[in-house]
Amino acid sequence: MTKQTYAIGVDYGTESGRALVVDVATGRELGSAVHAYANSVLDERLPADAGGAILEPDWALQDPNDYLEVLKHAVPAAIKASGISPNDVVGIGIDFTACTMLPTRADGTPLCFLPEFRHKPHSWVKLWKHHAAQPEADHVNAVARAMGEPWLDRYGGKISSEWFFPKVLQILTEAPEIYHAADRFIEACDWVIWQLTGAETRNSCTAGYKAMWQKETGYPRREYLAALNPDFANVVSDKMACPVSPLGSRAGGLSHAAAVWTGLPAGIAVAVANVDAHVTVPSAQATDPGTMVMIMGTSICHMVIGEHLHVVPGMCGVVEDGITPGTFGYEAGQSAVGDIFGWFIEHGVPATVSDEARAAGVSVHTLLEQRAARLKPGESGLIALDWHNGNRSTLVDVELGGLMLGSTLLTKPHEQYRALIEATAFGTREIIEALERHGVPVHRLVAAGGLPERNKLLMQIYADVTQRSIGVVRAEQAPAQGAALHGAVAAGAYANILDAARAMGGLKDEAFVPNAANKAIYDELFTEYKKLYDYFGRGANNVMKTLKRMKREARSA
Amino acid sequence: MTKQTYAIGVDYGTESGRALVVDVATGRELGSAVHAYANSVLDERLPADAGGAILEPDWALQDPNDYLEVLKHAVPAAIKASGISPNDVVGIGIDFTACTMLPTRADGTPLCFLPEFRHKPHSWVKLWKHHAAQPEADHVNAVARAMGEPWLDRYGGKISSEWFFPKVLQILTEAPEIYHAADRFIEACDWVIWQLTGAETRNSCTAGYKAMWQKETGYPRREYLAALNPDFANVVSDKMACPVSPLGSRAGGLSHAAAVWTGLPAGIAVAVANVDAHVTVPSAQATDPGTMVMIMGTSICHMVIGEHLHVVPGMCGVVEDGITPGTFGYEAGQSAVGDIFGWFIEHGVPATVSDEARAAGVSVHTLLEQRAARLKPGESGLIALDWHNGNRSTLVDVELGGLMLGSTLLTKPHEQYRALIEATAFGTREIIEALERHGVPVHRLVAAGGLPERNKLLMQIYADVTQRSIGVVRAEQAPAQGAALHGAVAAGAYANILDAARAMGGLKDEAFVPNAANKAIYDELFTEYKKLYDYFGRGANNVMKTLKRMKREARSA
Repeated sequence: MTKQTYAIGVDYGTESGRALVVDVATGRELGSAVHAYANSVLDERLPADAGGAILEPDWALQDPNDYLEVLKHAVPAAIKASGISPNDVVGIGIDFTACTMLPTRADGTPLCFLPEFRHKPHSWVKLWKHHAAQPEADHVNAVARAMGEPWLDRYGGKISSEWFFPKVLQILTEAPEIYHAADRFIEACDWVIWQLTGAETRNSCTAGYKAMWQKETGYPRREYLAALNPDFANVVSDKMACPVSPLGSRAGGLSHAAAVWTGLPAGIAVAVANVDAHVTVPSAQATDPGTMVMIMGTSICHMVIGEHLHVVPGMCGVVEDGITPGTFGYEAGQSAVGDIFGWFIEHGVPATVSDEARAAGVSVHTLLEQRAARLKPGESGLIALDWHNGNRSTLVDVELGGLMLGSTLLTKPHEQYRALIEATAFGTREIIEALERHGVPVHRLVAAGGLPERNKLLMQIYADVTQRSIGVVRAEQAPAQGAALHGAVAAGAYANILDAARAMGGLKDEAFVPNAANKAIYDELFTEYKKLYDYFGRGANNVMKTLKRMKREARSA
Repeated sequence: MTKQTYAIGVDYGTESGRALVVDVATGRELGSAVHAYANSVLDERLPADAGGAILEPDWALQDPNDYLEVLKHAVPAAIKASGISPNDVVGIGIDFTACTMLPTRADGTPLCFLPEFRHKPHSWVKLWKHHAAQPEADHVNAVARAMGEPWLDRYGGKISSEWFFPKVLQILTEAPEIYHAADRFIEACDWVIWQLTGAETRNSCTAGYKAMWQKETGYPRREYLAALNPDFANVVSDKMACPVSPLGSRAGGLSHAAAVWTGLPAGIAVAVANVDAHVTVPSAQATDPGTMVMIMGTSICHMVIGEHLHVVPGMCGVVEDGITPGTFGYEAGQSAVGDIFGWFIEHGVPATVSDEARAAGVSVHTLLEQRAARLKPGESGLIALDWHNGNRSTLVDVELGGLMLGSTLLTKPHEQYRALIEATAFGTREIIEALERHGVPVHRLVAAGGLPERNKLLMQIYADVTQRSIGVVRAEQAPAQGAALHGAVAAGAYANILDAARAMGGLKDEAFVPNAANKAIYDELFTEYKKLYDYFGRGANNVMKTLKRMKREARSA
């Protein structure tokens, strides 16, 4: 009998980091601990000890020291909670929000750690939801379109303000002294791996999905970067150059310093970094082509492995080695899902209903779900468009808005609630159909995230609308478990991610099976949804954009 | 100095009747009294003393005896409240809901008063909102279209199930023994005048707007009626024949029996009957061409006088002598206005808002109005279609549904509330534009009904959206005051309704004046509304009808 070994996964979220101890042989979760970031999200001002500068609207920064504190506190606490010996840990992996990036010195020191830059907002980590680089994103897109850059189509024809180059370009534009003082611009996840190993690496997931890196051609070419700004011409060669490593590869051994922080043995394998959504795919055993993973929460991130490269309009990205080595990882998304239900419950449900929920001892969500579940498909008489936060895939348009159609004087909140759920399911179906139309099959679905546990009606509607069965990832902390799985692969416990996924990943026994009796009705409703989708989303009627413009004009008048 | 004289107006509503004493010289309201109908609206079963038969869905009946009770109680009470002597009353007029009709014997005895018919639902009064004659209405429309009946276009191309011939045809179809036993089919308003005078009359308003009577051609021709049903061929000649009298004319003198009921002098003038909305026009001094009266409540009824006959698509009707003698009265309508706001407040406003309203000591309506009033036009980012109860004018389509477009995760209830108000204002603007496109000018607006008093923001939005000033009728009980005005004309106190309107009608000092600064924004929003109106209302996208069909199928499955 071989010795029992363990891997650690660290999941870096928006407000805290979670460490998890996982059994390398079975993938079982043995113990975890969470550490909140002391500086959380900086969206109003810098910390007082950094001068407290006021931040502009749409800014969102973080403190890289908080990431180190997670290693120092959450990892030892998780080991303690699991009851294992740290000496039996063979590998560690991490996953992160993305694009979350920072400027550093050549030795990896964040500029915000240096007294001469600490009071300057541009020296800090730009969190994924830093949205202040929209002018730069517009410029990135306009120049790429004008120059016919071949990678643009792989990212839905539009680069987000959240991504790497707009954020770096904002630093160059607004704080050239920071831009020039930075030896490196790096994803925070790669920076954490650097701190763990003492060596800089870059991973194919964030490089591919957030920095337009493609395996055959690398990052965007010099001529294009120069066209963005002459001072930007050499940003890749000067400040980013580093081999891009496939996921699951060994970034290095745990440094002595990091061994002290974590309580783990020095020299154990550290995997290259990964993104929170993508790292979940092997945890869900969705490494075979045709299985789509949906991370379902406030929004949905859809990921599916393809064997070949296809340009599917409206994807977030398609990246070779982006999810598993040797395949093409397709990522799509819906900008708001749980957020729409949350908005509706906060602003659209009357006291009569919330009082009844309280009297029944259930949440308003649950009461609406119970009532909506008693409706048959089509019975609400309503159809909605789920664009309250714009549409990411397949329209890539933040200027769209929500729609509710078919209300009568008898329409009730639970009918609207069901129509909103159905709209988000139609949104997923449209993504699946776009993939399949362009050569990427999607046979079955696997769900992760908060929604599958909380809303069974929603899951059944997704199964019925897509007429595909939906499994649910088994791991309670799927991203952290996926990160640990990558750590196990880096340690050589498995030959590759696929083998590790077979052994360590898994689904719950419970699955959502499509009800064939609902197929015809949902097909008809989807046809209507699609007609509205194309009419309002593809230029025939731009009323949603007109309303947003008029709203801005009214507010600035 | 001439002796001071008075006229009585009796306004028959859906659940009660109101009598009002009015000064003939000035139109001043001196005293009123309300009498509730003992049997109210019979929509579940007949009264117990009539056997208690269960009524089908969509039925709505009344008891004609309740109308007589109003004469016996409300009229004497109003005289008492006013402090006048009944001997100074010179005339009486009434107005009524319509089409509200009943079968009677040749002497005017309602069939439901006779023991042999009293237990049969079809012998009772069919109230305006009796909607069970839809199959008959469909038949009336299909045959009229097939035979190219010339009057169809004057009624928006579609006869409502609420109107006279569908209701009579339902009696023939479902209870032929009642049909054959009936010597007369008559509007309840004309029946009340019959009871007051002892002689049958028919008025040009209900005949014109509810029974397709036209001054030049009379009722629908025999060949058409025979095509509906051979037994229906002679319904007009056998059961309706009677001269149609113009409004304001003298139906007769008050009978001795009615003098006993009312306490009024026998022989005083009784005016021919009228409809509640139309009778308000002279009270609002809107007897000149180009002034549109809007009766604004749960729905809106629009009336405007034209000098010439034009066929305006989507009107409820155009009738010569329909509102004032010698002119063409155009009627249009919006199926739901106040009802939409009521629905939204009942089902779409969260406890946080209703709690704030309670704490502030105001209604939810008022709180939303206050907040919505602080928004600039265009600031909500929303646009709505006000079709929650279908669209009467100009689309004449009950199968349409409501729409709310442009919601975001930050959209608040008061923004939706304002968008709903704006939608109903756009609906009125579309009616005005349809009239003007087809040759009927609309220069200014006068409002009556409950909304003008209760919602100043709504009135200002209507003024801004239509860019027309809106006066408000002065009378507190405008329909009853208008009915009394007709009684005064019948008594010869004035030469005609126009003279009476000048003396007795009037507007409040307060008026709503359009804000020119809002014109451009509302023009742009109306352009967007109109695009949606035509797209969803005129066949390009029939999703609303599809959803209603699917809802019916789901419910019957």
